[in-house]
Amino acid sequence: MFESAQLLHEVDKATYQREQARLRVDLLNAQYDLKLNGRFPVLILIAGVEGAGKGETVDLLNEWMDPRHIQTSAFGAPSDEEAERPAHWRFWRALPPKGKIGIFFGAWHSLPIVQRVLGQIDEGAFAHATGEVQRLEQMLCDEGVLLLKYWFHLSKEQQRKRLKALEKDPDTRWRVTDTEWAYFKLYEPFVEVCEPFLRQTSTAQAPWIVVPAADPHYRALAVGRHLLAALRERLDTPPAAPAPDATPPLPVPADRVNVLTALELDQPLERPAYERALKKWQGRLNLAARDPRFQNLSVVAVFEGNDGAGKGGAIRRVTRALDARRYANIAVAAPTEEERAQPYLWRFWRHLPRHGRFAFFDRSWYGRVLVERVEGFCTEADWMRAYGEICDFEQALVRHRVVLIKFWLAISKDEQLRRFKLREQVEFKRFKITDEDWRNRERWDAYESAVCDMVERTSTTAAPWTLVEANNKYHARIKVLATICRAVEQALAGDGERKPRGKAARKSKDTPKGKPRDKPKDKR
Amino acid sequence: MFESAQLLHEVDKATYQREQARLRVDLLNAQYDLKLNGRFPVLILIAGVEGAGKGETVDLLNEWMDPRHIQTSAFGAPSDEEAERPAHWRFWRALPPKGKIGIFFGAWHSLPIVQRVLGQIDEGAFAHATGEVQRLEQMLCDEGVLLLKYWFHLSKEQQRKRLKALEKDPDTRWRVTDTEWAYFKLYEPFVEVCEPFLRQTSTAQAPWIVVPAADPHYRALAVGRHLLAALRERLDTPPAAPAPDATPPLPVPADRVNVLTALELDQPLERPAYERALKKWQGRLNLAARDPRFQNLSVVAVFEGNDGAGKGGAIRRVTRALDARRYANIAVAAPTEEERAQPYLWRFWRHLPRHGRFAFFDRSWYGRVLVERVEGFCTEADWMRAYGEICDFEQALVRHRVVLIKFWLAISKDEQLRRFKLREQVEFKRFKITDEDWRNRERWDAYESAVCDMVERTSTTAAPWTLVEANNKYHARIKVLATICRAVEQALAGDGERKPRGKAARKSKDTPKGKPRDKPKDKR
Repeated sequence: MFESAQLLHEVDKATYQREQARLRVDLLNAQYDLKLNGRFPVLILIAGVEGAGKGETVDLLNEWMDPRHIQTSAFGAPSDEEAERPAHWRFWRALPPKGKIGIFFGAWHSLPIVQRVLGQIDEGAFAHATGEVQRLEQMLCDEGVLLLKYWFHLSKEQQRKRLKALEKDPDTRWRVTDTEWAYFKLYEPFVEVCEPFLRQTSTAQAPWIVVPAADPHYRALAVGRHLLAALRERLDTPPAAPAPDATPPLPVPADRVNVLTALELDQPLERPAYERALKKWQGRLNLAARDPRFQNLSVVAVFEGNDGAGKGGAIRRVTRALDARRYANIAVAAPTEEERAQPYLWRFWRHLPRHGRFAFFDRSWYGRVLVERVEGFCTEADWMRAYGEICDFEQALVRHRVVLIKFWLAISKDEQLRRFKLREQVEFKRFKITDEDWRNRERWDAYESAVCDMVERTSTTAAPWTLVEANNKYHARIKVLATICRAVEQALAGDGERKPRGKAARKSKDTPKGKPRDKPKDKR
Repeated sequence: MFESAQLLHEVDKATYQREQARLRVDLLNAQYDLKLNGRFPVLILIAGVEGAGKGETVDLLNEWMDPRHIQTSAFGAPSDEEAERPAHWRFWRALPPKGKIGIFFGAWHSLPIVQRVLGQIDEGAFAHATGEVQRLEQMLCDEGVLLLKYWFHLSKEQQRKRLKALEKDPDTRWRVTDTEWAYFKLYEPFVEVCEPFLRQTSTAQAPWIVVPAADPHYRALAVGRHLLAALRERLDTPPAAPAPDATPPLPVPADRVNVLTALELDQPLERPAYERALKKWQGRLNLAARDPRFQNLSVVAVFEGNDGAGKGGAIRRVTRALDARRYANIAVAAPTEEERAQPYLWRFWRHLPRHGRFAFFDRSWYGRVLVERVEGFCTEADWMRAYGEICDFEQALVRHRVVLIKFWLAISKDEQLRRFKLREQVEFKRFKITDEDWRNRERWDAYESAVCDMVERTSTTAAPWTLVEANNKYHARIKVLATICRAVEQALAGDGERKPRGKAARKSKDTPKGKPRDKPKDKR
């Protein structure tokens, strides 16, 4: 990939001055058109060998264009805030919204490449990291991001000269440390790792652009011109008519047997037994949350369910066991303007808790494959690819020692009707029932299919769904509490190490028709 | 992923009879519409646990539809023909053409899954294999294949019952061997490996469809109905208008410095020295090709170059050193009707040699990123993704101990003119010059850009390009011969093991402007 970049490309000063003057005007215009157009964000990745003028180029782009609409992010050692979230969290929080330009300096590529060169990770782990990068970038492109990836290259001899020159100049001497020279000695291993990596992460939508970086004029013009061409091409392309659907249909259920109908929704639990169980589990959870080892974990609990199934009530029974400074409730409604300007998962990434904390999502990222699917708020291709994107997202959480627990609270159609009517009658519950609830109810079957597909396509060993029989609120609340409590205790026992959870219950057990497939142990 | 499939889904006989009668008519109609439409092929993958009725379902599909337009392929142990080609060769040769249905029984998923479960490959190798499958399937979908993937699932208890039943029946007893029971004992490990694999290879365009397989009626209807719905959806969708271009532009060269202009095209070599070198290298190559260890290798040599650069002549000087039974010349021209009905790379896969043999491609798969790009025979998105597809293809060759050598024969524009004129004057050479050659010549610069992009994006450590200065035919022929000979000798020295070739020459050498970057050693 570096054949051309190894050659000496030069631009003389006069040509550079002339060209850059024109380029600045055109880039600034394009930037304003982008802002006006507001249909897509631009993300520029700046990567490559040490001493190749990456920083200077970033400075230049900020100088050429209006820096108020450019978000430049340099990613070095993670902050404590960042270290306590999954590795990609810091990239998500820095993503530019539609209409703006983001420049990432040392993005998701840096760490795996450096780790591989230094032998800190093996071939397999590197292949895994490469796959993660591929899927992340694919997702960004699918979400409409114009992703431009520049790789600044120097031959070994060029790099040596450049580092020497930087060292000699008193103004730049600070930039050449032992690290730079240590990396220089690893020039060949870096090339050996980078070459296949760049190749495998070069796609039609987001190819790596290798920039010959020895001459400052040449590299500046090369990046500037390509950026301009890419901006203009996207800006001047009329908005795409929705592409004809290339996704095959999911199967339509051939019977009424499914994970929901197989549940026995009415589970007995009387008030006195409920009160006792509540006390017991809340006590246990409180204790678990105050365990010192909990500082290496966090908990993300997702609550989905039929309207009126009692998600809020169940969450409250959990949070009562916890210190208010240690948890957050995230009620997910329609996205805000800021959220609509970002890739779909952005509004969930932003709420991920630090270690030692809990986050309770009252509705979640599953909206994409539930309400958005059923109501047609996104295309079939969008929600179909969301299954994979969600699994990638959740894998990232679990690998970062997030205890991820997902509940579907299920009630019967009759029970829902009873609760809706009750809500209409009781003064202080009236705000809880809207026309939308009644409309959703009419699409009961469509939602049921969507839920079954969701469970089938996103219940994984690391992040299984827990289906909660919720006709009896007491039972539902205890099952939720107990499930969270056990998951936390199990994670603590592993001292933050990830252990597969709920495997036996979800995988190898044959669930006979019409029998409850999963009861909390305290009920047996 | 198997939550729903674990439940007992049943269809009674009467319902089945009624439904299947209707389904057969609809499927047959769809199959004929597909044939008439002729715009896309259908590829059905049948996979899943042992004893889940995969074979019965394949039989049924053949019974329901017209088997003359269905190609069913079961992949067991590879034949000797297959074993001597890269692993995916046998799938490529069995791909259905446009308008037809192919059924693959045990496709590219089987081997990596079984190997992983049996511990024959580690996590890293499995991640690699998963990535290969993802890219292969993505390529098929991009090429318009309707890819339908059915995974037949049984719970462990269902599988045990099924194997017992098969064993009990004298007619089916032969189907249950020690292998089946050995796999049954590995039920949980299989699920642990398959679940993430299915998830990661489920895309919006080609999701896995899990089929609850315990009841023969249910599973037959489930597959039949989904197949029908998928066929109808694609058949009834009007042909897509070409999608607006979502690929950013490649950089336009900012100067005339590139890997081609950096070559010193005129290399001296007089006839007597040429004759001596020819004899020497032909002798060495002949010797190498008769080495017993050569039976574990094969050679694929790709010749691209300017019109009139002497590709044919260079190939002839190589083949003269070889036994005619051991090599094939593949002259690549416009694709045949059969080839147009297949994914792009199909027509090259079909010509891959067995071990112990040579294949010389006079033009090649690089047509996609050269003539097809320049002449607009395919969309930008098509040739942009081809870089990655080609690299994947070549990696597969190299891993299978194919010695892959790629030549670009470069002549100057003046030299080309001289040769064209000569061809017009010499009676027996007139057939070699056509209007097309003159037309291509007018696009010299566009071709030059395409060649530079090609070298940049497909010259890899394992399969580097060799640029041949070809103004002097003698020099060009000797460089080609010597390069092939050395590559074969090096591969023999590794006794079939892959060694990175040409690395030093391509990677770490700084190539000064205007100097030849690579000379054969015998010329120094």
